[in-house]
Amino acid sequence: MSIIDIIDKKRRGEELSKAELSEIFLGYQSEKVEDYQMSSLLMAICINGMTMEETLTLTDLMLYSGQKMDSSKVEGLMVDKHSTGGVGDKTSLIIGPIMAALGLKMGKLSGRGLGFTGGTIDKLESIPGFRVALTKEEFIYDLNKVGFTECEQTPEFTPLDKKIYNLRSVTGTVSSIPLIASSVMSKKLAVGADFILIDLKVGSGALIQTKKEAVELASTLIEIGKAYNKIVIPVLTDMNRPLGDNVGNALEIIEAMDVLKGKTGVLRDLVIELSSTLYSRAKKINLDVAKEEVKKCLDNGLAYEKFMEFVKMQGGDIDKLELASVMKPVYASEEGRLKDISAREIGRLVLELGGGRKKKGDAIDYGVGIVINKHIDDNIVKGDILCYLYQNDELDRTDDVLKAFTIVK
Amino acid sequence: MSIIDIIDKKRRGEELSKAELSEIFLGYQSEKVEDYQMSSLLMAICINGMTMEETLTLTDLMLYSGQKMDSSKVEGLMVDKHSTGGVGDKTSLIIGPIMAALGLKMGKLSGRGLGFTGGTIDKLESIPGFRVALTKEEFIYDLNKVGFTECEQTPEFTPLDKKIYNLRSVTGTVSSIPLIASSVMSKKLAVGADFILIDLKVGSGALIQTKKEAVELASTLIEIGKAYNKIVIPVLTDMNRPLGDNVGNALEIIEAMDVLKGKTGVLRDLVIELSSTLYSRAKKINLDVAKEEVKKCLDNGLAYEKFMEFVKMQGGDIDKLELASVMKPVYASEEGRLKDISAREIGRLVLELGGGRKKKGDAIDYGVGIVINKHIDDNIVKGDILCYLYQNDELDRTDDVLKAFTIVK
Repeated sequence: MSIIDIIDKKRRGEELSKAELSEIFLGYQSEKVEDYQMSSLLMAICINGMTMEETLTLTDLMLYSGQKMDSSKVEGLMVDKHSTGGVGDKTSLIIGPIMAALGLKMGKLSGRGLGFTGGTIDKLESIPGFRVALTKEEFIYDLNKVGFTECEQTPEFTPLDKKIYNLRSVTGTVSSIPLIASSVMSKKLAVGADFILIDLKVGSGALIQTKKEAVELASTLIEIGKAYNKIVIPVLTDMNRPLGDNVGNALEIIEAMDVLKGKTGVLRDLVIELSSTLYSRAKKINLDVAKEEVKKCLDNGLAYEKFMEFVKMQGGDIDKLELASVMKPVYASEEGRLKDISAREIGRLVLELGGGRKKKGDAIDYGVGIVINKHIDDNIVKGDILCYLYQNDELDRTDDVLKAFTIVK
Repeated sequence: MSIIDIIDKKRRGEELSKAELSEIFLGYQSEKVEDYQMSSLLMAICINGMTMEETLTLTDLMLYSGQKMDSSKVEGLMVDKHSTGGVGDKTSLIIGPIMAALGLKMGKLSGRGLGFTGGTIDKLESIPGFRVALTKEEFIYDLNKVGFTECEQTPEFTPLDKKIYNLRSVTGTVSSIPLIASSVMSKKLAVGADFILIDLKVGSGALIQTKKEAVELASTLIEIGKAYNKIVIPVLTDMNRPLGDNVGNALEIIEAMDVLKGKTGVLRDLVIELSSTLYSRAKKINLDVAKEEVKKCLDNGLAYEKFMEFVKMQGGDIDKLELASVMKPVYASEEGRLKDISAREIGRLVLELGGGRKKKGDAIDYGVGIVINKHIDDNIVKGDILCYLYQNDELDRTDDVLKAFTIVK
């Protein structure tokens, strides 16, 4: 069947066979199929969907488009964690050390940020000396030694996924459950953990906007996991608000450390929920028991120690972490109850401050960002400090900042 | 709104505003929008459709992407005719002279053939000396002088349509009523005839496969015409079988002349139907009266004379028309009733013989082709000549030819 006939078949909403999917996707990898043909197919998939059989085939094609970690060399239970992205999301950097403290192995390959959501790799690079590029051997070694490691995903892992992901981001073909599921799972399967926690962000600011879609995505992820004998644990979390108080690369490292040192609040609660869910499933123990153990290793400093070990192992010098030169408080201009903080607006502000990339390859100013000083439902009086801006210029962004905070009478 | 947001809006099935359509389509014309973005949008349009308002906007964008003929300089009623394509379709070359003989003006811009359906321009080029490239001034001059002219569509007419059409043909986004309708109508509106006959081919071998789709396309074409004060006259014709007996460039010129000289059969019947429909609408006369007049100018040789005038005016020397060197009869290998002749198979054979282009820019062997010697429902006995192959090689294609003919007991 010709490439055009394959695209046309999906246009009509029909199921593509394994041979047809291989023909067009491997053809795309080897550059025999053009970008404009793939984007046309991707749009047809977005609108007409894919069956589970097709989704599994696509996952397999992406997984075997590149190398795999030799996870048989990891000693003990290997876990992994993925978040579908959010503003201020630094949970991996807290959950990883917790898992290590609990005796599990969490090894993650991560990407860089683009647009107003950040990437964990960028956050780690704000620590002077931190090496995000590890060989496969170093990855396994560090993981066995420390129990937690995180490094940059290199082109030899799922290159087909990367090529398709890049195309999707510029052709309006991002919102598709089978495409999201196969993309996420191929990357996780290339690392090879036995238990994979997926933090599914749902809300107007997220890729997945409704609960219904989230449930559908969750069950697709579980199904794909089953086909590879992996346990996938999807957890749905809200993503209309920034996660935690700090947004910005170095600032998020600091908040991760704060939580590891005992700081309470929404972020700690979420981290405990996610960690204990993953731990209870991996160790086959009761959730409440798991929760107690998670709390214990946060309270006794063991998770914090693991974080410091992890940073040191990858060459980072946490004492040299630097913040922006100017710290500007932003004051409330009205009074009332703080009803909402817009994740999207805060994300955009940090991007404007220089803390993110508008386009691939942009340099990042690691020290800039925002520290939120008030929480949802707090009573606000005029002149209260809503947040602090960390910036390396003298621009006044008060009006933009106030737009992110919804205060009602 | 960004290009990606516009594509995404159509993915969700929403209507695009005039501003959004202009942004993306004019952006595509000026190469600010990439092929892979346009193909993604085109696929979303194929599946989610376009409203009449959107279709009109797209037609307008394509029409004004280039130049227009100055149809005000054409003396008398100007008519045009378009066919959605078929194997052996040489109706334009018969209807044009008929219209001229009846005192109307039929001026056509045409394309070249690709794949197994031929293009009228290629057929005309089989006449030695025939000039298919005319300036706008020559086009109007010839039209006023002869009453029928046909020349190659040059890049200054609806360039946006051409760019989109080329992309559609390689991205599986051909089958879309709003895209077909806006493409056809923008080209017709650029010429500017007052009455536009559209011969809509329906059938398994055609672009439009069901009657329902054909009716929908017909009403879209009429609506677009209304918006520009043009009368569009869609006629639905069957296209599972080759049109007439001759398929191949020079052979089709010969058959057009045969019908103009009085040859009877399916092709003459169709030409009379189409011509009288167009003539009766343009002159606001009764269909039966129109039919009599059409027949008269076929019978009295006036239409034939117009054809000869047309060929001469554009520099062609019909006496030098050449056919292939080898004429091979193909004999029936079984007996029964001739139930079907496959247009697709015959088209492919002519392509194989060298009478068409497998890809753009391929050279054409004008003299090759097929002359069908038996008609549907004829009784066939073994050894009957089913057809003659005109070829410039000695290859035996008997088995392939027999596949095109379905003979039943």
